[in-house]
Amino acid sequence: MASVFGQAFRVSTFGESHGPAVGVVVDGCPPRLGLDVADVQRELDRRKPGQSRLTTQRREGDVVEILSGVVDGITLGTPIAMLVRNEDARGRDYDEMRTKYRPSHADYTYQAKYGIRAWEGGGRASARETIGRVAAGAVAQKVLRSVWNVEIVAAVAQVKDIEASLAVESMTREAVDRTPVRCPDLDGAARMIDVIDAARKAGDSVGGVVLCVARGVPAGWGEPVFDKLDADLAKAMISLPAAKGFEIGGGFAMTHATGSEVNDAFRRGAGGRVTTRTNFSGGVQGGISNGEPIVIRVAFKPTATILREQDTVDIDGNETTIAARGRHDPCVLPRAVPIVEAMMALVLVDHALRQRGQCGS
Amino acid sequence: MASVFGQAFRVSTFGESHGPAVGVVVDGCPPRLGLDVADVQRELDRRKPGQSRLTTQRREGDVVEILSGVVDGITLGTPIAMLVRNEDARGRDYDEMRTKYRPSHADYTYQAKYGIRAWEGGGRASARETIGRVAAGAVAQKVLRSVWNVEIVAAVAQVKDIEASLAVESMTREAVDRTPVRCPDLDGAARMIDVIDAARKAGDSVGGVVLCVARGVPAGWGEPVFDKLDADLAKAMISLPAAKGFEIGGGFAMTHATGSEVNDAFRRGAGGRVTTRTNFSGGVQGGISNGEPIVIRVAFKPTATILREQDTVDIDGNETTIAARGRHDPCVLPRAVPIVEAMMALVLVDHALRQRGQCGS
Amino acid sequence: MASVFGQAFRVSTFGESHGPAVGVVVDGCPPRLGLDVADVQRELDRRKPGQSRLTTQRREGDVVEILSGVVDGITLGTPIAMLVRNEDARGRDYDEMRTKYRPSHADYTYQAKYGIRAWEGGGRASARETIGRVAAGAVAQKVLRSVWNVEIVAAVAQVKDIEASLAVESMTREAVDRTPVRCPDLDGAARMIDVIDAARKAGDSVGGVVLCVARGVPAGWGEPVFDKLDADLAKAMISLPAAKGFEIGGGFAMTHATGSEVNDAFRRGAGGRVTTRTNFSGGVQGGISNGEPIVIRVAFKPTATILREQDTVDIDGNETTIAARGRHDPCVLPRAVPIVEAMMALVLVDHALRQRGQCGS
Amino acid sequence: MASVFGQAFRVSTFGESHGPAVGVVVDGCPPRLGLDVADVQRELDRRKPGQSRLTTQRREGDVVEILSGVVDGITLGTPIAMLVRNEDARGRDYDEMRTKYRPSHADYTYQAKYGIRAWEGGGRASARETIGRVAAGAVAQKVLRSVWNVEIVAAVAQVKDIEASLAVESMTREAVDRTPVRCPDLDGAARMIDVIDAARKAGDSVGGVVLCVARGVPAGWGEPVFDKLDADLAKAMISLPAAKGFEIGGGFAMTHATGSEVNDAFRRGAGGRVTTRTNFSGGVQGGISNGEPIVIRVAFKPTATILREQDTVDIDGNETTIAARGRHDPCVLPRAVPIVEAMMALVLVDHALRQRGQCGS
Repeated sequence: MASVFGQAFRVSTFGESHGPAVGVVVDGCPPRLGLDVADVQRELDRRKPGQSRLTTQRREGDVVEILSGVVDGITLGTPIAMLVRNEDARGRDYDEMRTKYRPSHADYTYQAKYGIRAWEGGGRASARETIGRVAAGAVAQKVLRSVWNVEIVAAVAQVKDIEASLAVESMTREAVDRTPVRCPDLDGAARMIDVIDAARKAGDSVGGVVLCVARGVPAGWGEPVFDKLDADLAKAMISLPAAKGFEIGGGFAMTHATGSEVNDAFRRGAGGRVTTRTNFSGGVQGGISNGEPIVIRVAFKPTATILREQDTVDIDGNETTIAARGRHDPCVLPRAVPIVEAMMALVLVDHALRQRGQCGS
Repeated sequence: MASVFGQAFRVSTFGESHGPAVGVVVDGCPPRLGLDVADVQRELDRRKPGQSRLTTQRREGDVVEILSGVVDGITLGTPIAMLVRNEDARGRDYDEMRTKYRPSHADYTYQAKYGIRAWEGGGRASARETIGRVAAGAVAQKVLRSVWNVEIVAAVAQVKDIEASLAVESMTREAVDRTPVRCPDLDGAARMIDVIDAARKAGDSVGGVVLCVARGVPAGWGEPVFDKLDADLAKAMISLPAAKGFEIGGGFAMTHATGSEVNDAFRRGAGGRVTTRTNFSGGVQGGISNGEPIVIRVAFKPTATILREQDTVDIDGNETTIAARGRHDPCVLPRAVPIVEAMMALVLVDHALRQRGQCGS
Repeated sequence: MASVFGQAFRVSTFGESHGPAVGVVVDGCPPRLGLDVADVQRELDRRKPGQSRLTTQRREGDVVEILSGVVDGITLGTPIAMLVRNEDARGRDYDEMRTKYRPSHADYTYQAKYGIRAWEGGGRASARETIGRVAAGAVAQKVLRSVWNVEIVAAVAQVKDIEASLAVESMTREAVDRTPVRCPDLDGAARMIDVIDAARKAGDSVGGVVLCVARGVPAGWGEPVFDKLDADLAKAMISLPAAKGFEIGGGFAMTHATGSEVNDAFRRGAGGRVTTRTNFSGGVQGGISNGEPIVIRVAFKPTATILREQDTVDIDGNETTIAARGRHDPCVLPRAVPIVEAMMALVLVDHALRQRGQCGS
Repeated sequence: MASVFGQAFRVSTFGESHGPAVGVVVDGCPPRLGLDVADVQRELDRRKPGQSRLTTQRREGDVVEILSGVVDGITLGTPIAMLVRNEDARGRDYDEMRTKYRPSHADYTYQAKYGIRAWEGGGRASARETIGRVAAGAVAQKVLRSVWNVEIVAAVAQVKDIEASLAVESMTREAVDRTPVRCPDLDGAARMIDVIDAARKAGDSVGGVVLCVARGVPAGWGEPVFDKLDADLAKAMISLPAAKGFEIGGGFAMTHATGSEVNDAFRRGAGGRVTTRTNFSGGVQGGISNGEPIVIRVAFKPTATILREQDTVDIDGNETTIAARGRHDPCVLPRAVPIVEAMMALVLVDHALRQRGQCGS
């Protein structure tokens, strides 16, 4: 369904931006796993607005409450429901949106689909919807680390024309979080910050690319045909607000090469393990993990909501103009990092459980 | 599950490359729809190998039989099963694959996952698996055309470094099929053919990009959050063999722009209909169609199976080399065109039925 | 998944008996439907404990909060999350259950499955889990009444050996709720109350049968083969705590008849509508509704938790005895009535939306 | 969807009674399992018509072909498609059904749902649809026996007023198959045969009850809440043609007892294993298996299609009469036995894989 994701580890999110709360229910989590509210809060804090001048100044505590599925810090195997109350809801900033559609936002399409929409703050199309994903992703990451020793790290790889140099094999979450733009390449980060600052001052917005790597995934996760591991990753990522492109491994760049240039030759690795000399496959071959790091890139367009005046129509179809007020991210990239990590985790844990179910390990 | 796709219009494919048959079951098709075996055969003929010197010379009649769900050329609403027998199965060409893994192919990952694999011809990882998709897509396209007047056209937009100039708003399937490379830009097509010929002669392979447009999709298809229309398209496309990248509308290129440059201003169109001045959104905003053409691009890597000698390991983990024999496409792009169209159709019809179910039209 | 029900109208419940809260997320509800919190609270009040001396004296306000999916009393089409806080949680009453398994309860099986359980109050196996079902069912009934004019009424048809005489075609919810045992046959009700009182005084429990009828369901809901309307009803009902039997129409009694005795002859009804002379089919033929009232019966065993001493084992496998303390229903039947209605509604609305999706109306 | 069953072990059936073929696709079967076509054919032979004078004389070879998912008698882990061609299709016998609805059959409801139906032989509502179930069930039974040593045996427990005495703990499939009525109680069997013979001579039909036991199921299979093991069994069984009632363990009879009479006291069994003194629970408590035999009973109504003249309406709504010609079972019970076993197996294997996925074993 619309708001349900996963087959074996299934999450169901809910909540409008300016309603009482947002949250998520996680069904299928393995039992007897240590899980504290702090495990979840830590990830939500990385996602929340107001962390730096780079992000929206909307201030939300985003304090999560675990409502079920956990007793004394241990998972029960039953659904884990998690709730975050909405606090700082300045509906007035959105008054104009009641009657006008923001260009490239979901205002018009929600109205077309449902004949009604929660116009304040974008309702379900708000970035606040991702709180449920991040909370569920925190649980997923706990499972992946505990049971399979899988580690997931994402970073901002590009903001507008600034491309960072990222060490996919070794970059750490600590290094990523060291800069407000979540780019571990300090030089690149500084230039990205300049670009974002300039966009904010201009009442405009910029986009970019998030790279995410999962290390430690064993060979054999994923399915042939439709539920390929990379296909589910593509869906997970393109389901994020403002995501418009996805690639794995060599991605679009590989279309300029020949097979002999980008085929990943197998070799005998440490302990006789099969490894590959290169990783143009991005850790997935035929939809199934091959034991190499899984590497994906996600393109985020510039934020749709900008302070500049834009042409649009109102709900009666008359042409008019709109200029957003309110507090908006000039660039979603820094906050997208923990969200991308969460979606990576949700896909991986789902396939881990499915593989264990069908094949026994 | 692995081989099941869609929620309301659900397809389930089966079959190994060198087993008795491949096929598909379509569940949820609307009743009382005209459907002849010719509707399906036409699309399979566009997919099948041996159409020109550009594609593998494996000769398969690929004759489809409709086993159920249709009586006297009318759909019953019950499952439509379709079957294609495998004919020209030269297992011997694959003897080496019994003991060696082809680089960047699914040989190793299937073995790692299942502890067994149908090594002849790649088994389920073969391009023959797409026969079921194309057959189901033919049914989906019939529904979309009959009920909603939706038209889907894909074309090869790029082969290696050759980029075609495509008229997204007006290109036709007839124009696309006029060249063996399925590119309606005649000049571009000629140069693509040269590139593919060169790759084949070199025992190598090349990749490229397929662009697909769906015209006539009404505003309102798709879902918020996880099952966004573009998220499901991303999954559908990345689930194709050799697909490594997906983008919608402005895609990765949009990451270099500002919001004010790529926001799609709304305007009042013919008959008061809300339209957009540009289509950087690719017809989808907030995961829901906005009535503009849906435009996506899919990156296909160079075919993994090449005739050149490559380094690899055997099933005992010893390093060795492999050079494919057998008949292989030096470039999957021309045959990928009807497959991409099929996947676009499967996603759209699923969301059309879901929208009608929830919202009544 | 375990706690997810439905395909087009999908509910996901969560919550342990003695955790912070129980609740539900409803995904796929049609938009623009009037829905007040009172619509939901009314049904929860019918389900809640402490309504009369017949039911457990546990006192819970069971006040529901709608967290999302509704603005100004109108559904948005997005997920509707509903929450009920747990209040009166006397964990001490359950101390013995920490180390001993109650016979015929879920204590042992949860432990066997998960290796852990929320032993206080039965955790997820508590009757409190049905709060989410009833809340979701209230939404479903609102949809069914508003859009299709379907009316659902359940009643207690039997308690132990007392069988009521019920007028399936005409009984109303008002008549049902007039007696504390929820049986509109006043004479039968009085005798049922005596039986329940006797069981309570004896520290024992009794079971019985709930009958449920849905009137106004049009012909055509349900699916051939696995998702038959009655198959989904069977699953819905047997998924209720203490439910051990299900039958539709003539049910088990029909096995004693001949075909010529229980076939429902068709006849031409008012306005030329096809009706049946009898309704041994219970409104469903071949898994699809035929326009007649849908009539089912559900058998509930005597409550497992009783005050009498019973033989059992402890968590170390040693034989011992247990006698429940705490407040327990000597008979679940009266409170099962709104729960059965809720499940009937969840199945019907799911099939209504599926039928509209596939067949257009 | 309509014709898809299961979550982890998913089957998708297809085929009309008088179309080219019927069959099934099984997705999610564990790999490296021995599976011969004979394993499947054996079960189909038990299901097929014409085995004795008790069943329809329609002669179908019902020869199954495995199209995919198996190589050299070993499962690959990929979808297993199985096909049975329809042979003996005497459409003429059904001519009257083109324009008249058989009472209590699916003719009218299919027409109401889809606006069209395959009138010959009931199309998808024919008993031939169960071929796919039995073929898939044969695979499921192979998995259950090989991996978990689970054994499933069903028998006819009642035909009209004749009740057999069955030894649930010890009855074998061999003993069941020794009588044409599939009842291991020889005296009861003889009387059942008389009843069926009498019905056939009278142009009438009779119903009855099938009992099914699964032995060796470990504690822990099944899910809390909606996907309870017995709830899924109820759905599986009520989805069978002519099934109108389901009960587990003490079932409806338990509604006449008190809790102290039917609670299953735990005791310490051989090797310290937790067992129960009685099995009124039927092997399932709180929706999860407890290690005792799983025992269910399914009520089948008398076959709807009878040779006697009955009142009905035609497709224009005019009142008329109908008397079936063709070859029909006067009693479906004997052939229902392998079908019930198949459905039991499909439910159990699905939950076995789900349990292994979530909880690791």
